[in-house]
Amino acid sequence: MRIGIDAMGGDFAPAQPVKGALEAKSLLGKDDQIVLIGDEPAIRQHLDSQAGWPSFIRIAQADQVVGMNEKPVEAHRAKPRNSILRMAEMAAAGEIDACISAGNTGACVAACQMRLRRLSGVSRPGIAIVIPTLHGPVVLCDVGANVDCRPQHLYQYGVMAAEYSRGICHIADPRVGLLSIGEEDAKGNELVKETRELLRGDKSVNFVGNVEGRDIFRGLADVVVCEGFVGNVCLKLVEGFAENVFQSLFAQMGKVQGEAAGQLQAAVGKLREKFDFNEYGGAPLLGVNGVCIICHGASQHRAIFNAVRVATGFCRTGINDRIKARFADSQDARDE
Amino acid sequence: MRIGIDAMGGDFAPAQPVKGALEAKSLLGKDDQIVLIGDEPAIRQHLDSQAGWPSFIRIAQADQVVGMNEKPVEAHRAKPRNSILRMAEMAAAGEIDACISAGNTGACVAACQMRLRRLSGVSRPGIAIVIPTLHGPVVLCDVGANVDCRPQHLYQYGVMAAEYSRGICHIADPRVGLLSIGEEDAKGNELVKETRELLRGDKSVNFVGNVEGRDIFRGLADVVVCEGFVGNVCLKLVEGFAENVFQSLFAQMGKVQGEAAGQLQAAVGKLREKFDFNEYGGAPLLGVNGVCIICHGASQHRAIFNAVRVATGFCRTGINDRIKARFADSQDARDE
Repeated sequence: MRIGIDAMGGDFAPAQPVKGALEAKSLLGKDDQIVLIGDEPAIRQHLDSQAGWPSFIRIAQADQVVGMNEKPVEAHRAKPRNSILRMAEMAAAGEIDACISAGNTGACVAACQMRLRRLSGVSRPGIAIVIPTLHGPVVLCDVGANVDCRPQHLYQYGVMAAEYSRGICHIADPRVGLLSIGEEDAKGNELVKETRELLRGDKSVNFVGNVEGRDIFRGLADVVVCEGFVGNVCLKLVEGFAENVFQSLFAQMGKVQGEAAGQLQAAVGKLREKFDFNEYGGAPLLGVNGVCIICHGASQHRAIFNAVRVATGFCRTGINDRIKARFADSQDARDE
Repeated sequence: MRIGIDAMGGDFAPAQPVKGALEAKSLLGKDDQIVLIGDEPAIRQHLDSQAGWPSFIRIAQADQVVGMNEKPVEAHRAKPRNSILRMAEMAAAGEIDACISAGNTGACVAACQMRLRRLSGVSRPGIAIVIPTLHGPVVLCDVGANVDCRPQHLYQYGVMAAEYSRGICHIADPRVGLLSIGEEDAKGNELVKETRELLRGDKSVNFVGNVEGRDIFRGLADVVVCEGFVGNVCLKLVEGFAENVFQSLFAQMGKVQGEAAGQLQAAVGKLREKFDFNEYGGAPLLGVNGVCIICHGASQHRAIFNAVRVATGFCRTGINDRIKARFADSQDARDE
């Protein structure tokens, strides 16, 4: 297996992607490789400083970098030799088996769609994230690959995210819920109402009906389907809220004295780790004909390490083959 | 001032609404009254048990109750003498100055729209909640009065919620943000892009552009505008996440021993209080020609007490007059 990592992507590139790549050795088989894509001299600086350059690391040169706030399509046009596009091209040519980037999400989605194309039968790819909860991991899809979707797209997110839940979260028959604003059929917007009929009509989906925002954390579904605008808002809302809660907790902790302070620090630290995106391991772009793992822009080495874990798991469990098989007979699925 | 409270609304009615009403005495002037609306014998039970029935409490009989999961319009048709509808009718007749309910939200919105009508110039009412953050209160509107909105509706939410922020949160010139999935103009869905132009075009709105989910907690805006489906998902998501975090914290706390345990309990308890919806005080339905405060279905007496605080503040600061004045000259606003 050859895992490509965009060494230039994210707020702390190339230092953190390189560090994460080096740590990922423990996840690889003896013939597996990691290919760092980006500016070779800049990457080498971080490799050389780490006392020896291990043989499982290769570098593929890319001269240009897409900025975090550049518009995706324009960026690829203006910088055709950027690291993200180069990575997608290598994947399309079979030179790597997976792509990982903490860079510009839109640019990553666009590059993979353009170069890898979609899996046969898939109308639109969707980004799936795993949310850790007290009741186990919940896969939320889509968190921002597309906005202004149609019911068919949401239905496909449900099918694809369920395969991801099986392969990565090891849930045999994932319960699929549809994010809405009330459990009853009558609630929700038009998009939700139409999507519900599609999900309900597919007997191979373990559809549990509408779920509300709070139900994500209540163990009522293993997969939650939503439109990318809503999903992206949710993702960032939880991130902001967690930040706020932990800041408040640390402020409270400042007032605790003596022996208690140490114990408290340990307890809160443990909890914070649980909700830290660096531990999630990146989010796959489901539905492209390849493996593309998108990481948070503020990823540290730990996030890159975990993204390699997700990428290798994705390859090994053959999630894409299962998604293809699911849509192979479905006429609906080919309806663009 | 006469504050109407739906004594039959919510999971813990009539006990908790009655208890909250009794506690609210401290918020009232000497001629102010609270009118409990609902089944008189049931209400009396809870009043009598509290050693004496204070003179600031009156009861208005309503024979029927709308269930939490009934469909609003159908419920009002089937149960024309329900407590929510009776309350809205009393407000329309000038017998009470404000309505408070922890009952079926949809039924409350429908009753107030039908009986109180909208303020002149308002296309659709919106529910505004105050989210407590480390950087101060943020007003989010709409959290579920309407779905499938048009840009004009969102624009009006911004104007109305800013008046609410001025009146209730005492912010002189509230910064209004539009909830989206990136700061850049190009990001967001069609609804957001069109709404942005309307907000930007109104020089009397202190519009700060797009904000993301996490920005709600980062002090970047005092008012955040969104469509009701998205807002309701957000509201419940934060609720569910907070529940999860506090459960985890309490689980961690079980492992802490000795003197530390007490200090930790106090610190976490304080934090939990901060994010407890019972302390928010209910959410106004902005844009109706009256004062309507909607409480969480699981409201305890403390939430009803705080809703009375919000209702009296709403009346005293003349928020509705200010909203009317804002839309008086605007041709756009009358565009249904």
